[in-house]
Amino acid sequence: MALAAKITVLLGGVGGAKLAEGLAAVLPGRSLTFIVNTGDDFWHLGLKICPDMDTLVYTLAGIVDRGQGWGMRDETTYALESLARHYGLEPWFRLGDSDLATHLLRSQWLRNGMRLTEVAAELASRLGVDAAILPMCDEDMPTIARTADQGELGFQEYFVKHRWQPVLRGIRHAKRERATLSPEVERALAEADLVLIAPSNPWLSIAPILAVPGLRDKLTRLNAPVVAVTPIIAGAAVKGPTAKIMRELKLEVSAASVARYYGAVLDGFVDDIRNQACAFDGLRALRTNTLMRDESDKAALARAILEWIEGWRA
Amino acid sequence: MALAAKITVLLGGVGGAKLAEGLAAVLPGRSLTFIVNTGDDFWHLGLKICPDMDTLVYTLAGIVDRGQGWGMRDETTYALESLARHYGLEPWFRLGDSDLATHLLRSQWLRNGMRLTEVAAELASRLGVDAAILPMCDEDMPTIARTADQGELGFQEYFVKHRWQPVLRGIRHAKRERATLSPEVERALAEADLVLIAPSNPWLSIAPILAVPGLRDKLTRLNAPVVAVTPIIAGAAVKGPTAKIMRELKLEVSAASVARYYGAVLDGFVDDIRNQACAFDGLRALRTNTLMRDESDKAALARAILEWIEGWRA
Repeated sequence: MALAAKITVLLGGVGGAKLAEGLAAVLPGRSLTFIVNTGDDFWHLGLKICPDMDTLVYTLAGIVDRGQGWGMRDETTYALESLARHYGLEPWFRLGDSDLATHLLRSQWLRNGMRLTEVAAELASRLGVDAAILPMCDEDMPTIARTADQGELGFQEYFVKHRWQPVLRGIRHAKRERATLSPEVERALAEADLVLIAPSNPWLSIAPILAVPGLRDKLTRLNAPVVAVTPIIAGAAVKGPTAKIMRELKLEVSAASVARYYGAVLDGFVDDIRNQACAFDGLRALRTNTLMRDESDKAALARAILEWIEGWRA
Repeated sequence: MALAAKITVLLGGVGGAKLAEGLAAVLPGRSLTFIVNTGDDFWHLGLKICPDMDTLVYTLAGIVDRGQGWGMRDETTYALESLARHYGLEPWFRLGDSDLATHLLRSQWLRNGMRLTEVAAELASRLGVDAAILPMCDEDMPTIARTADQGELGFQEYFVKHRWQPVLRGIRHAKRERATLSPEVERALAEADLVLIAPSNPWLSIAPILAVPGLRDKLTRLNAPVVAVTPIIAGAAVKGPTAKIMRELKLEVSAASVARYYGAVLDGFVDDIRNQACAFDGLRALRTNTLMRDESDKAALARAILEWIEGWRA
């Protein structure tokens, strides 16, 4: 892929950040735009928390906690311990002291009237990240988990507090009717030479992005190729609840099943060599190693995808 | 003074917290109500900071940093260091990580619509403080310093950023016209058997309280005695800019000068044995050791004041 090419990536979570790191290793930051899931965002202790955006930006800035894949490295939690020890509150959502700097700044800037897109750009730029980091939209559009036994749960309640153990019946995008495509997201799609859907959880991380009014439609009509990377490897998810959710939604746990879920949006699919070979209903497909255990795996996957798509033009 | 007596104390700053500690050592918490200066309060990084209230409550809860007289003991500053290291911001106002718990809770509760009086009561109660802690009013009434060379400065800018070095010409209570006596402050004055004005800075800590519309008038007409403790010892302030400010305002640096400043509000004055004896224009006066170097000094001063006033009835 030419260095001047513009690549727009839809992503969320730790799997998304890994592919982002691989792309950033082989392409200049100005080539890359990340459209990030904000369905997980919430206000907590009066602070706006954007877990997927922070995971991505901390990863690209080289300050992420490598062990857990999110949060800042060398983190302490004195503020939370004080909340428990002095005020008898035991928040179930972990916030590190260094991490608090991000939430304090973001919350203050949002309250000052900046759009989330502007706030994200400023935070990323101060952290030295030169890729464009775009929230999927400026408005709140919280993902609600519809569960079998506990009714509707806010995303963080479902995912963090209950550790994604409740049986999922589906998800709902609250306030969707008020969300709009930001000018920055529209431009990132219009100018893209390639759109990638990262190996993030299709239901929890990608579905919210596709649910932003107008976004799925724009992707479907896009001239540039739209290619997804499988989040399923050898019949399982690398991390997190993708496979569990597919079973709960009565879907076959397979890459083909994910490709079908994305449907008409896709032009191509990157499958893992460990998965059973399949046809992907007329999509162009690449079989390669998609398991990203270290830096070199991440860069190799990014390179393999870019070279493969470069070949489409020939 | 009988244990059933109700004592209301006007105070701010570290000097005020010391006398509060002495009173709390010799009287049950239910006897004590503190009306605290909130002219120093400000919003910082999206957090509501109430320096005088926190100094008092941390002191009474036994978690204050004894060395500096304010902030929590064993404090860390990882959040602030992260702001500097990651985001290039060097806030001039120090906020500790454990201390952040207080500001986060307070800000959240205020945004949820609680009055500052309710928030202060809840925070103090969770910290195990049984004395009543009342902000001077629920509304914002920020103290503005009028300086000779830099015009008007917000209080924290004057006091912390510029370390009270600018020459003071006077102070102004912004938004004073919107401040009102809270029902809790009215009750604390109406029910008091004694009102004490702590040895806090008269201009920076006490003047804002007296400026709450109606408060000075209520104090002046009060049946219960109103007694101030000198913040000037041997012609100087124990800590902070009281003497410097008096010189800048062209006032004699003396206890008598402070008593004159409080004027008709006072019935009595507690002077320090190190000061030159003076008549205090018809006020009842006590000469005693007012320098509070340790716990026993604090309790001794509280006891001396209470016994002296008990004698007024005889």
